[in-house]
Amino acid sequence: MRHLLSTKNLSRDEAILLLDIAEDMSDTQLREVKKLPTLRGKTVVNLFFEDSTRTRVSFEAAAKRLSADVINFSAKGSSVSKGESLKDTAQTLAAIGADGVIIRHAASGAPQRLAESRWIDAGILNAGDGTHEHPTQALLDAFTMRRRIHGDASRGKDLDGISVAIVGDITHSRVARSNLWLLRTLGAHVTFVAPATLIPFGAAEWPATISYDLDQTLSEGRPDVVMLLRIQAERMDAAFFPNEREYSRWWGLDDERFAAMRSDSIVMHPGPMNRGLEISSTAADSAQSTVLEQVTNGVSVRMAALYMLLAGEREGA
Amino acid sequence: MRHLLSTKNLSRDEAILLLDIAEDMSDTQLREVKKLPTLRGKTVVNLFFEDSTRTRVSFEAAAKRLSADVINFSAKGSSVSKGESLKDTAQTLAAIGADGVIIRHAASGAPQRLAESRWIDAGILNAGDGTHEHPTQALLDAFTMRRRIHGDASRGKDLDGISVAIVGDITHSRVARSNLWLLRTLGAHVTFVAPATLIPFGAAEWPATISYDLDQTLSEGRPDVVMLLRIQAERMDAAFFPNEREYSRWWGLDDERFAAMRSDSIVMHPGPMNRGLEISSTAADSAQSTVLEQVTNGVSVRMAALYMLLAGEREGA
Amino acid sequence: MRHLLSTKNLSRDEAILLLDIAEDMSDTQLREVKKLPTLRGKTVVNLFFEDSTRTRVSFEAAAKRLSADVINFSAKGSSVSKGESLKDTAQTLAAIGADGVIIRHAASGAPQRLAESRWIDAGILNAGDGTHEHPTQALLDAFTMRRRIHGDASRGKDLDGISVAIVGDITHSRVARSNLWLLRTLGAHVTFVAPATLIPFGAAEWPATISYDLDQTLSEGRPDVVMLLRIQAERMDAAFFPNEREYSRWWGLDDERFAAMRSDSIVMHPGPMNRGLEISSTAADSAQSTVLEQVTNGVSVRMAALYMLLAGEREGA
Repeated sequence: MRHLLSTKNLSRDEAILLLDIAEDMSDTQLREVKKLPTLRGKTVVNLFFEDSTRTRVSFEAAAKRLSADVINFSAKGSSVSKGESLKDTAQTLAAIGADGVIIRHAASGAPQRLAESRWIDAGILNAGDGTHEHPTQALLDAFTMRRRIHGDASRGKDLDGISVAIVGDITHSRVARSNLWLLRTLGAHVTFVAPATLIPFGAAEWPATISYDLDQTLSEGRPDVVMLLRIQAERMDAAFFPNEREYSRWWGLDDERFAAMRSDSIVMHPGPMNRGLEISSTAADSAQSTVLEQVTNGVSVRMAALYMLLAGEREGA
Repeated sequence: MRHLLSTKNLSRDEAILLLDIAEDMSDTQLREVKKLPTLRGKTVVNLFFEDSTRTRVSFEAAAKRLSADVINFSAKGSSVSKGESLKDTAQTLAAIGADGVIIRHAASGAPQRLAESRWIDAGILNAGDGTHEHPTQALLDAFTMRRRIHGDASRGKDLDGISVAIVGDITHSRVARSNLWLLRTLGAHVTFVAPATLIPFGAAEWPATISYDLDQTLSEGRPDVVMLLRIQAERMDAAFFPNEREYSRWWGLDDERFAAMRSDSIVMHPGPMNRGLEISSTAADSAQSTVLEQVTNGVSVRMAALYMLLAGEREGA
Repeated sequence: MRHLLSTKNLSRDEAILLLDIAEDMSDTQLREVKKLPTLRGKTVVNLFFEDSTRTRVSFEAAAKRLSADVINFSAKGSSVSKGESLKDTAQTLAAIGADGVIIRHAASGAPQRLAESRWIDAGILNAGDGTHEHPTQALLDAFTMRRRIHGDASRGKDLDGISVAIVGDITHSRVARSNLWLLRTLGAHVTFVAPATLIPFGAAEWPATISYDLDQTLSEGRPDVVMLLRIQAERMDAAFFPNEREYSRWWGLDDERFAAMRSDSIVMHPGPMNRGLEISSTAADSAQSTVLEQVTNGVSVRMAALYMLLAGEREGA
């Protein structure tokens, strides 16, 4: 694998290989082998055009555990704000010898432009681009589901037949999109649940069931997994977004809805949570919740991605 | 020791052990052993909710000298500003595998909340919380006094019988509080000197002498140590704070007061100094001043604290 | 060499030694030796009072490739903004044990003040001070010219007889000044080309030819090197600066002017470029352009400078 840009084009074999390597990475942590020499001498750049301390810190921890040197390049206050193009930034990183570039960008497709360009030869990891994709988030979510469902026998397994309800602002969510493609590839069934105004035009073409009624989805579908998305009220247009109380009442996983869920189902959230809005504290802190496992697994999955892209000779490089 | 949250609950033995380990750390610097392998593979997070480049840099230098990986997590522009709770931040750091968290927070008690919670198992170091405590500052101050007083024979010693005058805005100073508790534990006597409006309600209960008159304290008490606190004019309410000229005239260590001090007494300041306000340049740059030793000793003391908290198996972990 | 503050006082031998060491550093990169143990245990501080992600990242990559620990100290939001003096900042860095300080500052002469002071004993590298100097930029430019001209036989060589035209806002450019001094020392001839309002008063004293007419310089001088400076429109006073269209028309290296250049001449730019303003994309992306080599060479030159200042015992330290 040369780059990790999306889950849409990830084959089933590639996805399972990456999840299996993440299992190995996770095992080294259990054995207290906190530092692997795998990427010693490699330079990984965190190129963040949008703030995201959580994602940046997760990638930084993953890269350092593999002994890479990490350079943080926040676009705030950099030449970028003086009008430097993505091309010039990329060429600069190439010229200083970056082996891997982790990029978060407000524009959908920016990581792909980097990867397809001749500007830089480094491995490109998409850490979230506009409303397009956030592949390591989907991979850590799949890893978490696989672990909960298959336990120690996870290696080599997919998510065949698993039903996943993803609830929230589907229109603006790259997490929803990346999950959809990966979950389909792994054999799961996906239902998007949202007010009609937060389902994007064109979603009818997607390989997902669309629901406007969370109660119905929970009671009839009895999903194995309920994933709540973070509501970002500041991104909403008043015309499309019910107020927070209304949202919580109809689409929040409150205590009552949580109590009615199957006891072997799991509750996921990419964080940071708005407790009391899209998820109740009871649900978030319950044994069914995987919120913290998701963060832990995020480091393992990102170690696996960095390993696949940067260890040894780069394919085609 | 599992955490370093305050000096109030530090026993005399713990404090002296920490200061003795700091002596060892300081010695390795003298012997040009700039890098110790002690914390290799450990991850230390600088979780700063308030800016403090000096304290952050000191902890970062200490952790790197012990070969730890350091991740800086500034709360500015992070999810925290999007409303993430301390709990969720802490759990995130736990999930990425932080072994130690150095926290600075505007709310008194935030480090203790972290330490007492089940959110995170890491060692918590308080790097300043509200008006509560700043324990490593007090420890580096005590270390500096002990060195000046006992020299090479410092190990195992305390500060029995030493008199320390702490001058400035006692009300808002966590440095004053942390020093009071530690100095008392080590046997020193503390006098707080300030205008009445900058002595907190309740100070009468403290094991300290209160003085409103710096000249009297200097001439009658003849203290071994005079510690000036930084005046943070921006934090002051005009109703409580004399103007800068008045402050300097009555409570500043100006050249005249400095000249009248015992020649074997020492002058301390946690930095950064307002030269000409709470301290004159003559006093600050004199041989009696320990301002720079304090910064140097800060790295040794923080290495000792990181060592005690993070090396080997964590007690009770 | 104890410090690298300017190119003005750099002797020919020192400059050539530094460029030769940079060749060695560059070679290790070719041989895939990405990490040298040379500065293990040394602490290098990036002390940036002005934002410059590109320069900071280049120095950070250079220092990490030499295995130094790097601490980033941005003056934004630090005590500096609370009125701390350069002296106190320097003493703090000395006290935490900085071996090298890379400083960028808006005030011309700030690095020299640091170096001449008794505040800090570390090696000081000027990463750009006001309109004064930016020596590593000039060194990487000279390195790039030497490589293009002498190829594998560069070691030991200078730039005798080479003609260099530097085009742009000479008044505000520390890059222009540092290049002038170094190029003269290495035997090259320098022509500054700019509108009269962007040539500083006093330039008549400089060992450079002054031209107000780029077309004439190109057609009559047939320079070996044309270096375009970045136009920083925000720094300009309307009274002195033609509008961008006018600037581009008369002093930009547009396609027509580029086509008329000698085919063995080279085009340089310190980056980031304003494509279409001071340089056309055709020129910037041509085989004659060294823009990316300059960035790559910047890491080698900075490794060499760090090596000369910080490896082994410090002269006179």
